[in-house]
Amino acid sequence: MKTPFRSIEGSIVAPRGFRAGGVFCDIKRIGTGKGSEKGQKRDLAIIASVVPCSVAGLFTTNQICAAPVKVCVDIVRGGSAQAIVVNSGNANACTGRQGLLDARAMTKATGAALGLPAEAVLVASTGRIGVNLPMPQVRAGIRAVSDVLGSSADHAAQTAESIMTSDTRPKQIAVEFLWDGLPVRLGGVCKGAGMIQPGMSATGARPPAFPSGLHATMLAFLTTDAAIDSSHLQPILEEAVALSFNRITVDGDMSTNDTVLLLANGLAGNPKPRGRKPSGKGLESFRAALNHVCLDLAKKIVRDGEGVHRVVTVKVEGARTSLEADAAARAVANSALVKTSWHGGDPNWGRIIDALGYSSATIVENKVDIGYSAPGGRNVLWSLKRGQPTRATFADLCAAVAPSEFELHIRLGLGRGKATIYAADLTEAYVDFNKGNVADPKSLGG
Amino acid sequence: MKTPFRSIEGSIVAPRGFRAGGVFCDIKRIGTGKGSEKGQKRDLAIIASVVPCSVAGLFTTNQICAAPVKVCVDIVRGGSAQAIVVNSGNANACTGRQGLLDARAMTKATGAALGLPAEAVLVASTGRIGVNLPMPQVRAGIRAVSDVLGSSADHAAQTAESIMTSDTRPKQIAVEFLWDGLPVRLGGVCKGAGMIQPGMSATGARPPAFPSGLHATMLAFLTTDAAIDSSHLQPILEEAVALSFNRITVDGDMSTNDTVLLLANGLAGNPKPRGRKPSGKGLESFRAALNHVCLDLAKKIVRDGEGVHRVVTVKVEGARTSLEADAAARAVANSALVKTSWHGGDPNWGRIIDALGYSSATIVENKVDIGYSAPGGRNVLWSLKRGQPTRATFADLCAAVAPSEFELHIRLGLGRGKATIYAADLTEAYVDFNKGNVADPKSLGG
Repeated sequence: MKTPFRSIEGSIVAPRGFRAGGVFCDIKRIGTGKGSEKGQKRDLAIIASVVPCSVAGLFTTNQICAAPVKVCVDIVRGGSAQAIVVNSGNANACTGRQGLLDARAMTKATGAALGLPAEAVLVASTGRIGVNLPMPQVRAGIRAVSDVLGSSADHAAQTAESIMTSDTRPKQIAVEFLWDGLPVRLGGVCKGAGMIQPGMSATGARPPAFPSGLHATMLAFLTTDAAIDSSHLQPILEEAVALSFNRITVDGDMSTNDTVLLLANGLAGNPKPRGRKPSGKGLESFRAALNHVCLDLAKKIVRDGEGVHRVVTVKVEGARTSLEADAAARAVANSALVKTSWHGGDPNWGRIIDALGYSSATIVENKVDIGYSAPGGRNVLWSLKRGQPTRATFADLCAAVAPSEFELHIRLGLGRGKATIYAADLTEAYVDFNKGNVADPKSLGG
Repeated sequence: MKTPFRSIEGSIVAPRGFRAGGVFCDIKRIGTGKGSEKGQKRDLAIIASVVPCSVAGLFTTNQICAAPVKVCVDIVRGGSAQAIVVNSGNANACTGRQGLLDARAMTKATGAALGLPAEAVLVASTGRIGVNLPMPQVRAGIRAVSDVLGSSADHAAQTAESIMTSDTRPKQIAVEFLWDGLPVRLGGVCKGAGMIQPGMSATGARPPAFPSGLHATMLAFLTTDAAIDSSHLQPILEEAVALSFNRITVDGDMSTNDTVLLLANGLAGNPKPRGRKPSGKGLESFRAALNHVCLDLAKKIVRDGEGVHRVVTVKVEGARTSLEADAAARAVANSALVKTSWHGGDPNWGRIIDALGYSSATIVENKVDIGYSAPGGRNVLWSLKRGQPTRATFADLCAAVAPSEFELHIRLGLGRGKATIYAADLTEAYVDFNKGNVADPKSLGG
């Protein structure tokens, strides 16, 4: 299928009028007790537009939410912003009143450095929980990075690196598409490797029908030169996140800091969508491009998940409702026994049907089909049909679950509810990485 | 505090009129493809009373429930039974119509061997999912064990061994108490090490208020010579299970086979409780003894959990409701990040408050207290009070989480809801054990 967009270089600075950059300002050392070294990863970044932007955002629905999230929710509600300041190494979560003051001070210092009001600056943090930010270092970092912002691929790469915590590699993308004949660009960077099962909403409030048990810190920052008002931008971002970041799980733990922000500065010069339910080919291309960018970044998070060896796309069909399909897919995707069997390359359907049975979705044993395919979903090899093992050979089933990425197909045979969850195996490396370092007196949080 | 009962030897054959025994009949080899060896673990057991018993039982609420569970639900509803036949190595789950025929055939063969109607025989299975029982071996085992039933401690030990799967040691207990001056005895055996988060009810149906996400195979068989009708026995067992087996989690996975059965043969000669709401000192002692026996066996399951290094009692107080307290405790007890930090001996409160925040319980950050104590709950060392780190030193907090068993105290400060969950750490050994053996062509289920 021909997509209405094409990949380009430049990530978040590909769209016109965006500059970015990242520096090392010693937050990680202060936050984690680990020594500063030459070649230390960057830990503070700024993304800024040369003109004011429409803004859209989604935030963790964890009731314990970090100070920067609280600050952003207010700004996004206002619909306009022009810059984002973000640090890694310290989540500024569970930091009380001082935490909120520090988050606001970050927006103020960034505004001062860029000649913007504090209210035009969004803020995000990721790292240790429960440790106050080292503000002298943060302020020095903001001054340093604001002097070196630029629009080269290297500037984007610095930004992608600055937001990494346990990530092993930077994650970025950009695409270009046409809107009424005018080239429009959309770019993004993200981070996330553990504490990953985001469940984000626009206000941080949990919608009544929100799947329970949603749970990492993931941060994603998106930029576009499309012209579009925030009232039209927000629902399109919500839909894109619902199909991407809110559909991934590494360990089933939802972070206090999950944040997705999208800045649209309008410099592409396309005609702004108008009316309550705008439509049109240009807008549809934008929607498709945004869905693609979000899903690409979300999958990069799962692939780079802590200790992850295998990535499994869990596709449930035939549930009574979409919510039941989601519950069924998440029960399988978060089952310790299913995840360890994926790690072992074991096509164990018993653990899968067991997890389906204890999910909140309705399951009828003799209607359940379970099968495997390569990414793309063609030529499914069924291991279970209507609750009974098929004649597929064990060797063939093992071959189906041996690749580093495969799809798990589950058909419940009860209705039209569908859901997809992008999941990962559970490995000794995950346990080893997360068992913590008791020799480290700053490891109390995060 | 003086308890109204005392520990005695003999486990399930301590009560008068009970006999038991276990044999090796090759189910495990057939079920798992592993070779039979000298010294192979026993895999089939019978527990029988010399006279008919009142019966009570609770079963998995997993919608995918094994054939023996379906058979037992019907018998327990009738209120009377006289024997239990149980095998390990094969769960007889997801085995379709043949599975149900096989479970019924086990009750019939046992009845025939013991001179009882099939309807007086309860049946349970644990092991691989999705493989039909090797019935010739099962029948031979039933004949063999029914010839060697006895009432010695060795017979009880054989039974405890026969029901083990990934368990590393047998689990048993017995107590004696007085009822109107008459000595009454209560004994039990159980198994369970992985796929452990039982959520059992009397009919296998999930009560509306049942905590979602409940999830091992655990089997427990209890015997008593108390005289008590099944209508009085069932609610007392339900209460005991609600405070014990339904409060443990090893990996958060609920099995298809979880079963607790209690046989009461009346040979102690105590006066039977009468009326709709019976009371009295004897009955209260029975209740206390049953609660003790169930909790002792439940804790033995967690301690022997797959790869478990540390056992943590998670105590939540001050939730808005008991159900919210339960949800908060289970979110913490099943968080991969919290469990790996326990493994590492890391007193990480950030991951704990994060899990509380994404639970379905209401949490207010600046009201949350988190602390640690030795088993027994005295001298709690608080690491967090009202959402803020205390002055407890990192060394002291590390010392508090270093023992192989400790208590985690969480106060939410919002109401009077309380809940306790008996949980375990997540270790590399758990992952290694469960990643499966792809060289084993019979490992498709379980």
